[in-house]
Amino acid sequence: MKQVNVIFLGCGNIGGGVFRLLQMNAAGIAHREGMQFNIVGALVRSVNKPRPEGFPTQCLTTSFDELLAKPDVQLAAEFLGGVEPASTYMETLLRRGVSVVTANKEAIAHNWPRLEAAARAGGAGLYFEASVCGGIPVIKSLYSSLQANDIQQVKGIINGTTNYMLCRMSQGHLDYSQALEEAQAKGYAEPDPTNDVGGGDAACKLSILSSIAFHTKVPLEDIFREGITGITPQDIETGRELGYDIKMLAIGKKHEDRVEARVHPTFLPLDHPLTAVKDSYNAVYVTGNAVGNLMYYGKGAGDLPTASAMVSDMVTAARTAHHRYNTFANTEGAPAEMPIAQDWTTRFYLRMTALDMPGVLAAMAGVLAHHGISIATCSQKGYGHEQVPIVLITHPTWESAMRQAVCELAQLPQIKQVDALIRVEE
Amino acid sequence: MKQVNVIFLGCGNIGGGVFRLLQMNAAGIAHREGMQFNIVGALVRSVNKPRPEGFPTQCLTTSFDELLAKPDVQLAAEFLGGVEPASTYMETLLRRGVSVVTANKEAIAHNWPRLEAAARAGGAGLYFEASVCGGIPVIKSLYSSLQANDIQQVKGIINGTTNYMLCRMSQGHLDYSQALEEAQAKGYAEPDPTNDVGGGDAACKLSILSSIAFHTKVPLEDIFREGITGITPQDIETGRELGYDIKMLAIGKKHEDRVEARVHPTFLPLDHPLTAVKDSYNAVYVTGNAVGNLMYYGKGAGDLPTASAMVSDMVTAARTAHHRYNTFANTEGAPAEMPIAQDWTTRFYLRMTALDMPGVLAAMAGVLAHHGISIATCSQKGYGHEQVPIVLITHPTWESAMRQAVCELAQLPQIKQVDALIRVEE
Repeated sequence: MKQVNVIFLGCGNIGGGVFRLLQMNAAGIAHREGMQFNIVGALVRSVNKPRPEGFPTQCLTTSFDELLAKPDVQLAAEFLGGVEPASTYMETLLRRGVSVVTANKEAIAHNWPRLEAAARAGGAGLYFEASVCGGIPVIKSLYSSLQANDIQQVKGIINGTTNYMLCRMSQGHLDYSQALEEAQAKGYAEPDPTNDVGGGDAACKLSILSSIAFHTKVPLEDIFREGITGITPQDIETGRELGYDIKMLAIGKKHEDRVEARVHPTFLPLDHPLTAVKDSYNAVYVTGNAVGNLMYYGKGAGDLPTASAMVSDMVTAARTAHHRYNTFANTEGAPAEMPIAQDWTTRFYLRMTALDMPGVLAAMAGVLAHHGISIATCSQKGYGHEQVPIVLITHPTWESAMRQAVCELAQLPQIKQVDALIRVEE
Repeated sequence: MKQVNVIFLGCGNIGGGVFRLLQMNAAGIAHREGMQFNIVGALVRSVNKPRPEGFPTQCLTTSFDELLAKPDVQLAAEFLGGVEPASTYMETLLRRGVSVVTANKEAIAHNWPRLEAAARAGGAGLYFEASVCGGIPVIKSLYSSLQANDIQQVKGIINGTTNYMLCRMSQGHLDYSQALEEAQAKGYAEPDPTNDVGGGDAACKLSILSSIAFHTKVPLEDIFREGITGITPQDIETGRELGYDIKMLAIGKKHEDRVEARVHPTFLPLDHPLTAVKDSYNAVYVTGNAVGNLMYYGKGAGDLPTASAMVSDMVTAARTAHHRYNTFANTEGAPAEMPIAQDWTTRFYLRMTALDMPGVLAAMAGVLAHHGISIATCSQKGYGHEQVPIVLITHPTWESAMRQAVCELAQLPQIKQVDALIRVEE
């Protein structure tokens, strides 16, 4: 039986999950994979904090140097989270030839080139399946099951917090602040929810996911993001009447000459497979030029689902004599091999409040036509009131044209205000 | 660049798809995987049939011996379909050390031990991702991404023909024969549809899928199967009123001491992720003790989706120096390591026609209670008519008890007939 000595960087919720999983399924892993994992060191903030039952507390340390001094270490599992000091610790280990398994999306999204270079230099492996969508094995599937495809598109519900909140707003008829409060009470949202509701978390994951899918590094800072804070029950209800449900979507598309990467609330048709993804579940919808549409669905967070991905990576790392490295032309740093688009085409849902004056529709349609924007559906309800809501859905149009048009619409004397602009995907 | 010489066994629809894919994505595969595939031989029934443009027709042969005589062959891709002669050909190649990639579910389901033994003997690899659900990479995911889990359950929509037909019956309000006729017209059903509608095709795939998932050979002949020929629009409509949609489901469950494997039409809750799988799409819903619920969704058939899985296997086979073999205790033959259950618990939907006599419900409830079957919901509509439909859904109960109860119910003077018995899963 192969003995694999592992050090933990951190030992909180996910670290505890990995430890429990290694205990729980040790016999199966030993039988099927012929290996046994031994935890020989664990870097923690306090050695006195309670640990899972059976954890080898004698190997706890608060010193990274002490951890580094452990002999015969084959593998490190990183659970610290955040960019630093996690990135520097991982870099040090990789350069020394210790393979690293991590769930740390921030560190990978920010420092992938640096970590990849360290891994190559040390001949070590860098594995991060758990960094995108927890237990869903989408990263490995992209490079080891869909490698015969040219991947054209990834669309994902990759943030559980916002999916939970939007589901509660859509199905439970809560408003944004009620949904946030409930998500916080249930532990699905942080006390400071900015990183989730603003799209920062999803952007980190999309950077990793679309880089792997499109085989070109998609830098985090090039990803457009818009949060869900402006989504109202009124728009959700109006969207539903038009056949759409609202989802916080991470979208990557590869074109001939550019890559598109954006995170924003999106209306999706009610019968789209992603629309059926409820609560805190995650899903990634992938389109390849051979395989067509595929979807991976599962738990994007939680100690044991995340541990499932990490232990899988640990098994793979331990089995692999020659680790693989990305062959992106731009692995080692910027600039992107393919430019990241700052403009793209999509359909839009636009809600405005008009004043009951003659020529409202003509004026509005004129502005849109001037920008080459064609209207797919338009409804104006409540004639005879002082203020009239107008809702329309456009055909696919350029984002930049739409923004320009919205500025001009807001200045029309007939338009009191533009209330909502939400992108629509098919 | 690594040159990989491949022979084709067969070159019809799927073989043509593999050839087209290798041409279409050759540059990407060469860049990412560092290899190029050369077709050096192809066994066909007729060398004069038209082949895809660019196919190396000079290497076509109708003789397996001639194919065997090709020098420097690393890999064989098998597209013959059917148990024989495909199994014998594959066995011969494997024993000679030629790795085999196949989409042939019948051959694997019937002859896995024999083929596995030949692969071991020859030091060759046997890869069959495409044999289950075409392009959906569920087989590899089970053994290389979920290997840290104890897999407890797989539930799949793994036959596109029956899913298409049931969707058309459920959404398009067709009856069985109309749905079959439409499926045949669209090429989703064979002229003789028995293997699809009867569950034979799904049983082959479930044998492979549940063997991999539960790490014990689940023999084809032990899989219970019931077809969809008895499903009526009336039951579909009644089920929908109760909150269910009908799906042809392949179900594998692992218990402490036994494995359950069955294929039959099943009522699923309307909000189950599998219920959203429409038309000819496939999906596999997997439950692991760490990862929780996962679902894989995609195209289960078609030339390019199937080719996506086959070329992925070809890349893996060509990269792999030491092929892996299953570590099932019962890989090499029967009997099953874990017994395959001949009885199981499930909920049931039961529809009967009662005569309008006193004591109908009392008599019926008495029979069920006698067999320990507890009723979850019961509705009896249309009092005052001569014949009264009774529909009930049970709590989970043993299949054997239910069958016994149905025999007795059919003999009650108050019951004209038992119209439908459909299993219900959550």
